[in-house]
Order: sequence, then C-alpha cells, then structure tokens
Amino acid sequence: MLMNFIDIASHIALESSHTLVISVERQAEGRGMGPKSIGVAVIGAGRAGMIHARNFARKISDAHLVCVVDPVEDACEAAASELGLEVTYRDYRAALEDSRVDAVVVVTPTVLHRGIVVEAAAAGKHVLCEKPMAMNSAECREMIDATGRAGTKLQIGFMRRFDRSFTAAYEEVRSGAIGDVVLVKSLTHGPSVPQPWMYDIRKSNGPLAEVSSHDIDTLRWFTGSEFDEVYAIAGNFRCPQVRDEYPDFYDNVVMSARFANGMQGVVEGAVSVSYGYDARLEVLGTKGVLFVGSLKNDTVTVVDSHNRIGGAAVKSWRNLFIDAYEEEDRSFVDAIVRDSAPRVSGYDGMMAVAVVNAGNESIVQKRPVTLAVH
Amino acid sequence: MLMNFIDIASHIALESSHTLVISVERQAEGRGMGPKSIGVAVIGAGRAGMIHARNFARKISDAHLVCVVDPVEDACEAAASELGLEVTYRDYRAALEDSRVDAVVVVTPTVLHRGIVVEAAAAGKHVLCEKPMAMNSAECREMIDATGRAGTKLQIGFMRRFDRSFTAAYEEVRSGAIGDVVLVKSLTHGPSVPQPWMYDIRKSNGPLAEVSSHDIDTLRWFTGSEFDEVYAIAGNFRCPQVRDEYPDFYDNVVMSARFANGMQGVVEGAVSVSYGYDARLEVLGTKGVLFVGSLKNDTVTVVDSHNRIGGAAVKSWRNLFIDAYEEEDRSFVDAIVRDSAPRVSGYDGMMAVAVVNAGNESIVQKRPVTLAVH
Amino acid sequence: MLMNFIDIASHIALESSHTLVISVERQAEGRGMGPKSIGVAVIGAGRAGMIHARNFARKISDAHLVCVVDPVEDACEAAASELGLEVTYRDYRAALEDSRVDAVVVVTPTVLHRGIVVEAAAAGKHVLCEKPMAMNSAECREMIDATGRAGTKLQIGFMRRFDRSFTAAYEEVRSGAIGDVVLVKSLTHGPSVPQPWMYDIRKSNGPLAEVSSHDIDTLRWFTGSEFDEVYAIAGNFRCPQVRDEYPDFYDNVVMSARFANGMQGVVEGAVSVSYGYDARLEVLGTKGVLFVGSLKNDTVTVVDSHNRIGGAAVKSWRNLFIDAYEEEDRSFVDAIVRDSAPRVSGYDGMMAVAVVNAGNESIVQKRPVTLAVH
Amino acid sequence: MLMNFIDIASHIALESSHTLVISVERQAEGRGMGPKSIGVAVIGAGRAGMIHARNFARKISDAHLVCVVDPVEDACEAAASELGLEVTYRDYRAALEDSRVDAVVVVTPTVLHRGIVVEAAAAGKHVLCEKPMAMNSAECREMIDATGRAGTKLQIGFMRRFDRSFTAAYEEVRSGAIGDVVLVKSLTHGPSVPQPWMYDIRKSNGPLAEVSSHDIDTLRWFTGSEFDEVYAIAGNFRCPQVRDEYPDFYDNVVMSARFANGMQGVVEGAVSVSYGYDARLEVLGTKGVLFVGSLKNDTVTVVDSHNRIGGAAVKSWRNLFIDAYEEEDRSFVDAIVRDSAPRVSGYDGMMAVAVVNAGNESIVQKRPVTLAVH
Repeated sequence: MLMNFIDIASHIALESSHTLVISVERQAEGRGMGPKSIGVAVIGAGRAGMIHARNFARKISDAHLVCVVDPVEDACEAAASELGLEVTYRDYRAALEDSRVDAVVVVTPTVLHRGIVVEAAAAGKHVLCEKPMAMNSAECREMIDATGRAGTKLQIGFMRRFDRSFTAAYEEVRSGAIGDVVLVKSLTHGPSVPQPWMYDIRKSNGPLAEVSSHDIDTLRWFTGSEFDEVYAIAGNFRCPQVRDEYPDFYDNVVMSARFANGMQGVVEGAVSVSYGYDARLEVLGTKGVLFVGSLKNDTVTVVDSHNRIGGAAVKSWRNLFIDAYEEEDRSFVDAIVRDSAPRVSGYDGMMAVAVVNAGNESIVQKRPVTLAVH
Repeated sequence: MLMNFIDIASHIALESSHTLVISVERQAEGRGMGPKSIGVAVIGAGRAGMIHARNFARKISDAHLVCVVDPVEDACEAAASELGLEVTYRDYRAALEDSRVDAVVVVTPTVLHRGIVVEAAAAGKHVLCEKPMAMNSAECREMIDATGRAGTKLQIGFMRRFDRSFTAAYEEVRSGAIGDVVLVKSLTHGPSVPQPWMYDIRKSNGPLAEVSSHDIDTLRWFTGSEFDEVYAIAGNFRCPQVRDEYPDFYDNVVMSARFANGMQGVVEGAVSVSYGYDARLEVLGTKGVLFVGSLKNDTVTVVDSHNRIGGAAVKSWRNLFIDAYEEEDRSFVDAIVRDSAPRVSGYDGMMAVAVVNAGNESIVQKRPVTLAVH
Repeated sequence: MLMNFIDIASHIALESSHTLVISVERQAEGRGMGPKSIGVAVIGAGRAGMIHARNFARKISDAHLVCVVDPVEDACEAAASELGLEVTYRDYRAALEDSRVDAVVVVTPTVLHRGIVVEAAAAGKHVLCEKPMAMNSAECREMIDATGRAGTKLQIGFMRRFDRSFTAAYEEVRSGAIGDVVLVKSLTHGPSVPQPWMYDIRKSNGPLAEVSSHDIDTLRWFTGSEFDEVYAIAGNFRCPQVRDEYPDFYDNVVMSARFANGMQGVVEGAVSVSYGYDARLEVLGTKGVLFVGSLKNDTVTVVDSHNRIGGAAVKSWRNLFIDAYEEEDRSFVDAIVRDSAPRVSGYDGMMAVAVVNAGNESIVQKRPVTLAVH
Repeated sequence: MLMNFIDIASHIALESSHTLVISVERQAEGRGMGPKSIGVAVIGAGRAGMIHARNFARKISDAHLVCVVDPVEDACEAAASELGLEVTYRDYRAALEDSRVDAVVVVTPTVLHRGIVVEAAAAGKHVLCEKPMAMNSAECREMIDATGRAGTKLQIGFMRRFDRSFTAAYEEVRSGAIGDVVLVKSLTHGPSVPQPWMYDIRKSNGPLAEVSSHDIDTLRWFTGSEFDEVYAIAGNFRCPQVRDEYPDFYDNVVMSARFANGMQGVVEGAVSVSYGYDARLEVLGTKGVLFVGSLKNDTVTVVDSHNRIGGAAVKSWRNLFIDAYEEEDRSFVDAIVRDSAPRVSGYDGMMAVAVVNAGNESIVQKRPVTLAVH
C-alpha cells in the first residue's frame, strides 16, 4: 500500500515520460557466496533436520547449505531434490572433512550426539546440536570441552528461546509486569506415537528427555536459576501395547521442582496425545500471572446449530515453532560471524540433561532427588 | 524427534562402525535455474513489493527473482543488497525488454497499473497485479483484453484467498457447517496514516479502494455472487488536518450491500486507526455463524496487580498475511507452469473495482447505487 | 474464608466458655412490608414477565410483588404457585384498581402497551414498560403525556443499560480509552422462532421492533446522539414457510445509520437463528476499539481426538441478562422511592420506536430515510 | 418477547372488550411458611455466611431463614437489617435450642466446626458444614458419627460440585469426550491477605486447608478415586512480614499426587495474589484435554492506542461462584426434604482433610507421604 513509487506517481501518470533505462548490472557475487557466508552441513535429514536445512538453504543471509547427511539414501535424495543440493553424504565424517563446511547442525538420535560433536569440534566445525544435548552430564562435559579446546561455537537447540511469544513473555517478566517470579509451569503434549527406540527408558531417557527438555530449559530461563530438587511421577496411560515388554516406559510425567533461588517449578510432559500439539507456559509472580501458548490452529471459529462453538486445534510443533527455528539458526550464524557467545550454551544443554536424569531417577526411586552442586 | 537416522541408531552407537563415505556430487543445476524456472520481475520496491521480491528470491520452487524495478535509486540498492540481486531497473520498460523475465508483479500506485499491465502483456509477460486492479472498470477491461490477446496470465493480488484461516473458513462454509450463507461482513482497519495522494478521492478512489478492496473480494468469494446494490456512509474522523483542503476525504466507511442471489453484506473500512491492524470476517448462515480473525499478536497474556488482563495487538498486515503472500505467489507460478487459470482472475479484480466506484458514488449521492449488469 | 467470628475464634476454641444466649426478638415488620415498600403488579406472566415477577417477589429490597396479571388462567396459577402469591388477576384493570399496587410492569404484546400505560397513569401507578415502548411515536407521546400529567414514573425496559458488561464498556468509552466514538455496531441474533403475530410486519413492526430495539437504544446510549438517517436491508432467509403469505416478513436485517453528531452506526438483527443467543457490541473510536459480548455459555473448553476445540454456546437471553433485569427492576424502584428520573425514560423509548419505524420504511422504500427533527 | 398474552392480543386490541375481573384471593399460606419448609440457622455472619443467609432468606423454595448467629453484635445487626430478620443469636447454642430451626449452616472458623456440628447433631439438626470440614480425620470421624447417630444430614461445602461450568465439565468427561482420565490439575489463587490466625500452620492447616480444599475435592471428584500419595512443596513469597515470626507459613504450594487407580493429580494454591481470583481446572485424558475457568470478569475487551488488548480480571470468588452457592443450598434442602444422601458427604469432607494433613506433612518432611488405607 505504501511504496517508494508513490512520490513520483502522479508525475509519471500525467506525463508518461520515458524515464531513462538504468540497468544496474552488478558484479555477480551471488547471495551467500561471499567470503563471509557460513557453509553449513545438516546431519540428519528427518523432519527437524529438514527444517534446519530449508532455513540454511534459503532464509539465513550470512549462511548457505553445503550438504545434508543421512545414512538413508532416500532421505538424501529427497533433500537434494527439494533444495537443489549438489552434495549429500551418507556418513557425517565426510561432511566433517569437507572444507566448504564451516558449521554442522546435529539432528541425529541423542545417543549419537556426543560422538559427532566431539569429532566436529576436532575438525574445527561450529556446532548447533539439537536437544537433548546428550545422554548424561559426562557426555555433555566432553562436548563442551571439545568445542572449548577447538575454539568453535556450541549451541543447543532450545528453539523456544527464539520464539516470538516466549521472548515477548520473557520481556514482560523482566519488565516487572508480574512482580518477582514465584512459580513457572511449562508443559508439552505431543501427538506423536513414540518411536520403538524410545520405549527403553534407559536407552532413550524417555519423554522427559525427548519432550520435556524444552520445558526444563524454559524453567531455567524464566527462573534465572538452577533446579535444586525434583520429584516426578510417571505412568503409561496411552501405550498399553508395550506395558509388558517395557514396564518402565511412561507416556505421561509430572515433575515438580525447587530452584536454588527458592522459586518453584512444574514440568508436565505427555506423548501420544491424540488431540494435537500443546505447548503452554504459565508464570506466577508476586503481583500477577502470565500465560504463553494457544491450542488454536487458526483464527476460525464456528458456532453451529447444536449450540457448539468449535475451532481447529494445533496439530504439530512444526506449525507452531517454524519461525523460532529460523531465528535460532540465524542467531547461530550471528554468533559465528560476530564471534560472540551463542544465546543457548552447552552449559544450558548440560543442565537440562542433568535434570532429565534426576527426574528419571525420581520416577524409579519414588522420592525427590537433589541435583549435584552445579 | 522423528528421523530417518533412527532405525540404525543403536547399530551405529554400539559398533561405531566406519560406514563408507558416499559423496553424491550432483550435476550443478542450481535451484531455480532449470528451463522450467519462471523468471520474475517485481515492479515497485515498497513494502508490499519487497514481500513479493523475497518470496520469489527464496521461497517459490519453480521461480526465481530476476530483478526489482523502482524509480528510486535507494530502493533498488536496498533490494539488491538484501536479496543479492544482480539486476535492478529504474524503468519498468527495461524489465519488460529483459528476456530473462517471464512474469511481472505490479506493485505500483494504482494509477499506473493499467499502463504497465497492458505493456507487459504486449511484451508477452505474465502478470500478477496488486489490488485495486485499476481506477475503473474500463481500465480493468483493457487489462483483461490485453492479457487475453497476449495469452498471458493475469492474476489479481487478493491474497486473503490464500490465507490459511480464510481458506479454512471457506471450506467450513462449503461443508454446510453454518447452513446457507445469509450475511457476510468483512472489515479492515489499518494503522497507516494516509499517503498525501490518497486524500483526493477522485484520484485515489479512497479507502474503499486501498483498504476495502480485500473485503469486497471476500464478500464476492463467500457469497458466490455479485454485488447488486450498495449503500455507503463515510466520514473523516481521524484526519482533521485535511478537512478543509479535502472535504470529500473519508477515513471511515460502512457499506451495506444486497447481492444478486439475495444474500446480504457489510464492508467496513478504516484507516489511521491507532490501535493496530484489524481484519475480521463474520459469516452468518441459516444454521450457524463463523468468525475469522484475531487481534492478538502473539499468545502472551498478562494479568497484573490492577486486575487487568492484557496482551499485544497485531500491529501490521505484514505479520498477519505473510504466509498468504507466499501462497499467492506460489499459486501464480503454478498457474503459469501448468497453464491453468489463476485462482483470482482479472474479472475478480474488475468486479471489485466496480464496487469501489459504486460505493464512492453512493457516498457522494447519499443514496443506494445499483451496479450495472455484470 | 474471612468472617467476623474470626477475631474471637481462638478465645472461644480454647476456653469453650458458655457465652450468654442473647435472643434478639425483633418487632415483626417483615421484609418489604413497611410503609416505604413499593407494591408491584406484573402485567403479563410470560417468560419475560416472570423474570420481573421473581425479582419483585424476592430480590428487590424496597419492593414486593402484589400480584401478577394474565388473561390465561394457567399462567396465573403457575405464577401464584411458584411465588406463593395470594393474588392474581386476569384483567389488568383489576390491578390498577388495587390500592396495594403502587407500580406496574407492563410485559404484554406491544399493541397493548399504550392503552395499559395510559390507564395505569390515570390510576396513579408508576410504570415500567417493556420494549418496544409502543407501535409508533404518537402512541409513545400519549404515554409520556399521561404519566407526565399523573406525576408517575415511566421507565422503558432497555435492560442492557443495567448489564454489568455493557455499563463497564460505557465507562471505558467515557474514560477516553478508545478516544472519540466513530462507529457503534450492535447486533442481536435470537434463536426463537417468530410467534405467528410477528409475521405481519405492519402489525408487529417486525424484528426491528422485537429484537433490534435493544441495539437501537444501545447506539443512542453510546453515541450520546440521535439517529439522523437510516438505511436498512432485510430478507427472509430462515422462514420459507411464510414467504407466500407474508412476503414482507424478514428474519434478517442490517441497518446502517448516520447520527446527528456525525457518528456512524450499524444495527444487525436476526431471529430464528439456530445456533444460540448472540448479543454483541463493537465500538470503534478514534484511538481504539471496544468489544462487548461472548458466545460462550460457560467456561468449559474441550479439545478432542479430532483436533477440534469445542465449547457450549449461549442458548437464551434469559441466561445472559438475568442480572441486568434485576438491576433494572431495582433502579425502577429507586427512582420511585427517591423521586428521581428513571435511568431509561419514555423519551428513550419513543426515539427507539421512531427509528424502528424509519428502518421499516427504508426496507419497503429501498432508500435511506431521514428521521424527523427530534 | 414470547408470552401467554400473545394469543389473545389482537382480539383484545381490536375489541378492547372489558373482560371480567377475576380476583383470585388465595388462602394466605405465605412462601416458605408451610409445614414442609425447612427452617435454617446460619452460624457465622461473615462474607461466606451471608451468601448462605441470603440464599435461604430469598431463593430456596422449600426453606426459610430463621436466624443468623454471630458473636459480633454488629454482624447480627447488619444481617437482620439486610434480610428483615426477626431473630439473631450471639451464641450458636441458642439456635440449636430454637425449635423453629431444622438445619444449621456452619460457617465459622474451622477449629469450631467439630464442636458445633456434634452439638447440632445431638440437637437433631441437619448440618451443612463449610470446608475444610475440620482440623483432622479424627474430628471428621466424630462429626460423621454424631450425625449418623442422630439420623441427620451432613453435607460439606464443596460448592464447586454445584457450579454450572464444573458440572458441565464433569458430564463431558463422563461422556468420554476426552477418553479416560490421566491427569487432573486444579488451582486456586486468591487475592485475600491471610487473616492473622492463618499464619500458624499447625493451628490453621494453612492454605492447603483454607484454599486448596476445593481443589483436592475436585481431584477426587474427577478421578473417581482416592489420593494414594502426595508430594508438596511450599514457600512464602508474598508475605515477607511474617517470615521471622512464622517461618513455616507458606502462601504458595504445589502438590502432586498419585491416585489409587493410577491417575495423576496436581493441586496448586496461592493466597495474597494481587491480580484477582483465579480458579481453573484442567483434565488430560487419553484422547483429549478439557479446561474449566476463566480470568475474565466480564465480556468487555478494549484495544487501545498502545496496541494493548485489555480486559478486567475476576476480583473475587463471590462473583464467580454465587450461583454455585445457591445450587448447593438448594441441594442441601432437597436432601432433607427427600431424605436422600447429600451430594457431598462427610466422607468427602474427611478425605479432603486427610489430604490436607498429608500435604502439610510432606512440606515439613520434604518427602512424599502415603495416605493411610481409606
């Protein structure tokens, strides 16, 4: 509606003068081809991996996608076709040896994170590692040390820290709108049926790791403190088919927490919920309360002849956080280009993993578990 | 959370075997560089123009941005810099002569639309023309005829037809969820202070053209019929500074309508509202009612110690319809590639212009105005 | 949770002392039996009548219900039984002759209002007359003159002026929260199938009278001005069974308006909507916008396995405005007891009737109708 | 709008015939004065007590208010004046000796409940006892036994079981709309600053008793099961002035729970929140999720020139549950009149008290506490 054309519009319209053709032929540098553009390899071409791949291929100004890596040939083919990629690898080590690659995004199963990240650091690559960071604190420590020694960036994929609503909420809290924080509650309910490898909690760390990592990080973010003690209860309510084989598997978990600064927290996680994707945050302060999140998928509401008001629920996290992933990837590149600290550090990733492990221990031991001194 | 890596994850983790490096070096075709990729020129590098430019530069698979055109040098520079463009023009005729350009997007002041589109058609270019299509039906007819003769596509920029919520609403209505349509009400309130050229209604066609064109099209879409008669009242409530110089200027308009099929409609338009950007649709049926639109900018809600519940309002149409613009541009390219009819035709654009003119006549004459036979 | 007992609670609890029994036997005055208590007769024991009857029987401190009047024996019986009434009448004149009756509430069909009110005034009774006040301005004038001569109160039943949300909204507008008022839109959609007598518009004044009177009054209230010109379109969309016999009958009406002070208005009315009862107000100001009304019947929301978010819609105006009726009745009694002007006057009622008639004329004549000088 | 008058309206209007006056003078029985009307004494004339008193004085068909009891003379005076009461007592024993009193409503501090209820039962009075029922299970058992021996009714004041939204939600859950219940979360945040007697948790049982009793009962209701184990964390965040004197006092508590049938629960309580009164329920099922509660005080929403959307929050539980109290009182009278079991029993009250005590023990012992076999 408003445009630069406007000021001279009537002039043109009235005189219809033939203004001089000025063809500005620029030197072909190409977008993202300059010396400063960061070459990125995305390791893991699943759903989350492809979100990152699309971002680096198209949306991040100072970066470009060099390749995707996936051991499954079809996944590589599909990615190459969609993104017009010239290069794909089936082994991540090939990407680490590719000199065009400055940074890697690790979107593999959690058990592989430590190995890939340590090797990537040794190869001088910056790393954006998806959550959960690793299986335990020791692995996280190794990863932090490796990137520290190499002088490369290490960022963990807590993309909610880049979400527009979550960041707006954080600013509201910081502004004092609700006084001092008392209690932070964060929940994630996901529709996905668990992958087979998730049922063995000792190998997968369970929904606390796969789903609640985001909520755990959100609590650390909004309390500005560390978990001091957690107590978790869990149960298998929606996956009766694995009750015999995996009696420890849970698809629903509630974890309450005390923080080092005295604040309180609640994390609630559920998988295989059939009603949609549900991520909500509630922060109680001394003077007010704040909510983030909505179950509405669009802005349509229908009232029908049965006196029912209805609308569509959010189906997938991909709809919900698509912009947050883009911001996350952009922030990662910024940290590299400006040589600044990533907004979500390896320490953040490690602390979340420690809480996951403490929560799982609490479930098994049926008692509160205190976290080791930080 | 789910990825192709998963099935072989434990295998890799346990054996840490060194799988063979397979580097798939593809023939460098480049994305959007193949024979089928549509070369696009965006004419007008203002705010709306740049939305289209970014889409074609990055997001539309079967198209690529060849150049932007703007008579203002700085606008060209900024666009080139942001998008890594090699070519910009200050005169649209240069773009029309550029053989790499298959299609143009016309995002100039309305008074220029007719001339550019007719010339573009003559040059064999497909056209996506922003709304309002032109100043009057005669101009629209010329544009339709020109593209018809040339055999090129002509699509009009009613992007709400591509918006996720509007299309979901349309499907709800079609499904019979609210019975037969009785009344369609659509409103647009925008925060922008009018550009100086808008104050002269005879030259700009006023807010009915600049703002309400979308609502007029939405009413045609949801009624599946044509405006038969309109009655509009208008006033200048928020722009007292131009009351003397432009006594006919209005910043608020309410237009009721009868449709050819007997349905009813209301269009409400406002510019220079200071509270945000507000686009809402309400459809009353014989058995229910349906709503589209929300004033909430994000999902954050705060309740403070003054017992106030608060949140942020949508500030700009750019936030609201950014995905709709992308879908619109994609649909335009699809129509070209598949040689199919654009989803929003020149006829749709012409009918909306006719309603704008009838509404403005009603305001001046203070009586209902019947539209000519369609 | 907080109570007067509290301060002495521990004292009592610890000592368990036997405090002296003090029986305060008061002189039996009985509630609402004193010389100041206003005796009320409710004329018309239908749904709305019984709401008033219950209020005066139980809830209004300075008044008591003397009797209800209804020509239908069963209605009288039911009312007497429910409310423990000693007296009912089948002819309103009996109530006018009853010296225990100080005031009457007229809840009969509109055609009877004038006669009853004029007679009631002659009998020295105060009058609360339901909307619409009468069939035309002349009748209203008679009623105003009659009560004026008698020195009795005349209040018209626009109970929305006493509704908590509407009054809160009015205070927001007065406080300047949205700047100066530009446009007031009010709608009422009701589920009731029209009574047979409503189909003849000349005899009933149609939905504009029966339904939209409230909206018309709300526009006068929020604009603080008078209707200057109206333009209405109407149609029969949901009552096909009477199309042949009553071709003028409409069940859907949209009326736009210019006000004497330049403001704009829209009234929208619908009967026989099957989705519930829907009363909403939207006020656009120079600096903001305000909404009143909700379609939600309770605070329950369900998200189910079909990804649908659902809740129950309001079914009836009785749920919605039950407290407003009580406040209205209380305010009427206050005006009598304090000898002050009723908050909704006969003039308010007359102006609404004038607008109803102008709207119906506009529908028939298919042109805007200017209201006579006020 | 619809009334019995209607059918004969045109007849009357046209003929204006003088129908016969039929004055139905009934035998004066008076409302609520018959042999079946239950005489009620309300013991405790604080805020909650007066809600019950107003209900029995005016709104409950088969009951009437005989007297209120309060040791504070002014409270008695105010109640008598407001309700036109002939009798008030300063000692509850006087009410128990009054033969006109069939039932008592006990709205005193919790420490007095046991004594009053046991004496009331001995005097043959039915009892509606406010929550929490008593200080511990032993007291509750005494009360249950006393009314059991006397054959009088004992109902506990969990009025949410009578709230329109809560009962609608319960029916939704029972209908299978969300599958089987997995997790029930209920919270109450109240604005009231604690009374001095509340600070000593050993004497008051703290906010878990005074505030969370309702939530505890709601969890029992919606799970259809009993608490098996609770774990609670608590802290004093908003009352720094009593931290030294009452180090055990908490104004914020989170209690998670396992139920006997395997379901999960979370209770969250807060006092002295300054933002309003906040009571919400969330039920997660195997196939969906359900929400009850809203923070909006009315239906007004304002969007202002600072791009803020705002509304008023609920300030008090009195607004929120006023209708639920009325239904509760009506149900109590029904149980007496029909000699049926009260909908909320002494057992319900006792189980909630047991959970309160277990929660408080968990807070002190910092470990989960298992409830004794039920």
